[in-house]
Amino acid sequence: MALQTSTFRKLQQITGKQHCSREKEDLICYSYDAAAKTYLPDVVVFPGNIEEISAVLKLANRDGFAVVPRGAGSGMTGGSVPVDGGAILVMTRFSAIKWIDKGNLVACAEAGVVTSDFHKAVEAQGLFYPPDPSSSEFSTLGGNLAECAGGPRAVKYGVTRDYVLGLEGVLPTGEIIKTGVQTVKSVVGYDLTRLFTGSEGTLCIVASLILRLLPLPETIRTMTAVFDRMETAAETVSDIIQRGIIPRTIEYMDNAAIKCSESKLGPVLPPDAGALLLMEVDGNKNEADAAAGLLEDICMTGGALKVETAESDEQAAALWQARRAISPSLFQYGPDKINEDIVVPRNKIPDMVRKIRELRDKTGLTIVSFGHAGDGNIHFNIMLDKTDPVEFEKAEKTVEALFEYTVALGGSISGEHGIGITKSPFLEKEVGPVELDLMKKIKKVFDPNGILNPGKIFYKTT
Amino acid sequence: MALQTSTFRKLQQITGKQHCSREKEDLICYSYDAAAKTYLPDVVVFPGNIEEISAVLKLANRDGFAVVPRGAGSGMTGGSVPVDGGAILVMTRFSAIKWIDKGNLVACAEAGVVTSDFHKAVEAQGLFYPPDPSSSEFSTLGGNLAECAGGPRAVKYGVTRDYVLGLEGVLPTGEIIKTGVQTVKSVVGYDLTRLFTGSEGTLCIVASLILRLLPLPETIRTMTAVFDRMETAAETVSDIIQRGIIPRTIEYMDNAAIKCSESKLGPVLPPDAGALLLMEVDGNKNEADAAAGLLEDICMTGGALKVETAESDEQAAALWQARRAISPSLFQYGPDKINEDIVVPRNKIPDMVRKIRELRDKTGLTIVSFGHAGDGNIHFNIMLDKTDPVEFEKAEKTVEALFEYTVALGGSISGEHGIGITKSPFLEKEVGPVELDLMKKIKKVFDPNGILNPGKIFYKTT
Repeated sequence: MALQTSTFRKLQQITGKQHCSREKEDLICYSYDAAAKTYLPDVVVFPGNIEEISAVLKLANRDGFAVVPRGAGSGMTGGSVPVDGGAILVMTRFSAIKWIDKGNLVACAEAGVVTSDFHKAVEAQGLFYPPDPSSSEFSTLGGNLAECAGGPRAVKYGVTRDYVLGLEGVLPTGEIIKTGVQTVKSVVGYDLTRLFTGSEGTLCIVASLILRLLPLPETIRTMTAVFDRMETAAETVSDIIQRGIIPRTIEYMDNAAIKCSESKLGPVLPPDAGALLLMEVDGNKNEADAAAGLLEDICMTGGALKVETAESDEQAAALWQARRAISPSLFQYGPDKINEDIVVPRNKIPDMVRKIRELRDKTGLTIVSFGHAGDGNIHFNIMLDKTDPVEFEKAEKTVEALFEYTVALGGSISGEHGIGITKSPFLEKEVGPVELDLMKKIKKVFDPNGILNPGKIFYKTT
Repeated sequence: MALQTSTFRKLQQITGKQHCSREKEDLICYSYDAAAKTYLPDVVVFPGNIEEISAVLKLANRDGFAVVPRGAGSGMTGGSVPVDGGAILVMTRFSAIKWIDKGNLVACAEAGVVTSDFHKAVEAQGLFYPPDPSSSEFSTLGGNLAECAGGPRAVKYGVTRDYVLGLEGVLPTGEIIKTGVQTVKSVVGYDLTRLFTGSEGTLCIVASLILRLLPLPETIRTMTAVFDRMETAAETVSDIIQRGIIPRTIEYMDNAAIKCSESKLGPVLPPDAGALLLMEVDGNKNEADAAAGLLEDICMTGGALKVETAESDEQAAALWQARRAISPSLFQYGPDKINEDIVVPRNKIPDMVRKIRELRDKTGLTIVSFGHAGDGNIHFNIMLDKTDPVEFEKAEKTVEALFEYTVALGGSISGEHGIGITKSPFLEKEVGPVELDLMKKIKKVFDPNGILNPGKIFYKTT
């Protein structure tokens, strides 16, 4: 559906001319997210308040164009790209942290607030907001809600859904709604708040969120454990949980991932390690020290070659910088990346590691794997040249095989990236036809004209 | 809708004659729950497997009768009473704990498993399932899911929704579905699992649940703090949270509640206390001792007359027995009880306490209040003789005033009991018309013929 000039004028009236553009350079800037699939929108609008969002959506239903909400565009599955053109609705002007209520451990923030800004604001008051996707330096709280973002701390603290108590937003039909409460308990009608969480911006445009907070842990201990083989590391993760310790993070990296980090930062991590666990425990000082001691014992008994504890905040920060450097430095292995985000029951990680190795050996593809071992969440990356049709086909078959194996192990094809457009061809591997039909009917209840973020989750985009 | 004899015969064929009854004594036994409103069903069925549930629901759609799922019937708002007659579908034969997976901290149990049986089974393996409604000795996991049960430990550990990862159930139309996963992370389509949680048995009959577990805390310290006035106790609760301590429980009782307990058990609690906090902290020994010490300091500084720590498990158990004795012993104050379950932001508890006192003084009604102060969840009980029309009208007006004040304080009219039939007249005080309309449309998607648990939540029953 191409956008009429008359419609463009009406959009300009809603947001003001300076907040509405169809200049080519603006359209290009908002045509992609981190999945690197490009679709040009017809217009980009930057609403300044919830009434403007409502007016845009009402107009979209009348004039018949798609509206695609967007935070920072850091999504990994194409959730915020305009596959049917229409308007990109950019939420960056919703950037206020409205209040932080220390006595009740609750805050209210607008959807365009950058996750790490929110972290800093609450931490300054001795409070803690656990969800921390790797993109937290630029991702927004609204995007985090849409994809139910997780990150490394989910092992102990859960994911975005565990912290969203309520929200204010706009339905696809333009009505402004409020859902949920400011308290942990409430059973008053259906849980719309959590229905929206992880719905990838297809049911509601969220304008502000009410978020649960925790007291900031007093102490964090950051540790690394080096292993000769990935399987040994993976088995040690199972041992840790089995022993009743829940670290706040257990990240793992295979040798290829460690080398990636090295290429960017120099040798922060031991470059010859077959695999590495990066772990954190937290709590009061006694508690953190006790847990760190136990972790060290379990790792050494499990076959670690070396366990080290960061001796300062700077050392710990360097380790995390090395962890975050992996993803952007993967391209040394190939010009294109197929990045997947599977999750399996924790003690099935060794099986998945073996499967990845088997497929790597069989296909000759470069597969780098790292992720959140503590909650079974594995990011595997196939690095390739997509213009090579033989390699590309091999890669696609490998992804499919890994998804099938994931579901067979009792896992899920998306831990924290959502389905968007890149995973929609595989959705039916996990979700049955009756359940899928229900989801489509729910979508129809909220969005009878199909104008909000069309072509996502259930619909295969060409 | 009265049930035809031909339909009864078909039900007998589905479950076997011994699991299907329309004997008057059976109908009476299943005509009420803890809300004490009575509606006779036409038939009681006890399905033995998920296929039988499916067959009952398909028959209900064909022959046109209501199906009302029921666990232990311990619900407080009439959620499991058959207001339109039809079939009560009793889930007690779904009593198997299917597996407990210690390595992944996950278990699978059928919906009819009694909550405390599940507690014992996982605790025997060093694991912990936090949700513990006061009815846990007889309530079922399926009923807990339907009402999103909470209980005293929610302060630190959250409610049922925070522990349900997936489920198997039957749609009102008879299709068997599976939702969710076995892992904490997963973003694959809409979150049907949490849409069902708290939906009061109106969207799906849940047959089995996949539940997240935690390691069992090593140590628990149980403490009481006595205050001269309820307000002082309530303000101390705010101080505790403000100081960054999250006890696993902070229960409170007013003087009338303490006296109730005494009438049942003798003087376990200090009978002359204006108010009492019953608190627990947990963790490893160091952590629990440190938190207990801090709690004692905060309570004494906050104006407590006395703080005591239970010196043995038996002493702690006696305190909890006294706490649980309150509710059943309330009837010394009147033959009838109006029991409400409101929740307000924690630091608004002193306001609510003042409001309850004000209304008590104004109306002369007996109001006993106790509950889960740590999460702002207050159970207030008006004790009266409902046959006295003047008193009854006063009580109803008081409830309405307290609900309005709750919502004005940013709270919710039901923390953990649901809406059922007793609160449906007040639903619109909290939920707006657009949101309500969405909920009704969702109900229609799942249950086009309105046969599953009709007359609940949105519909005022006469």
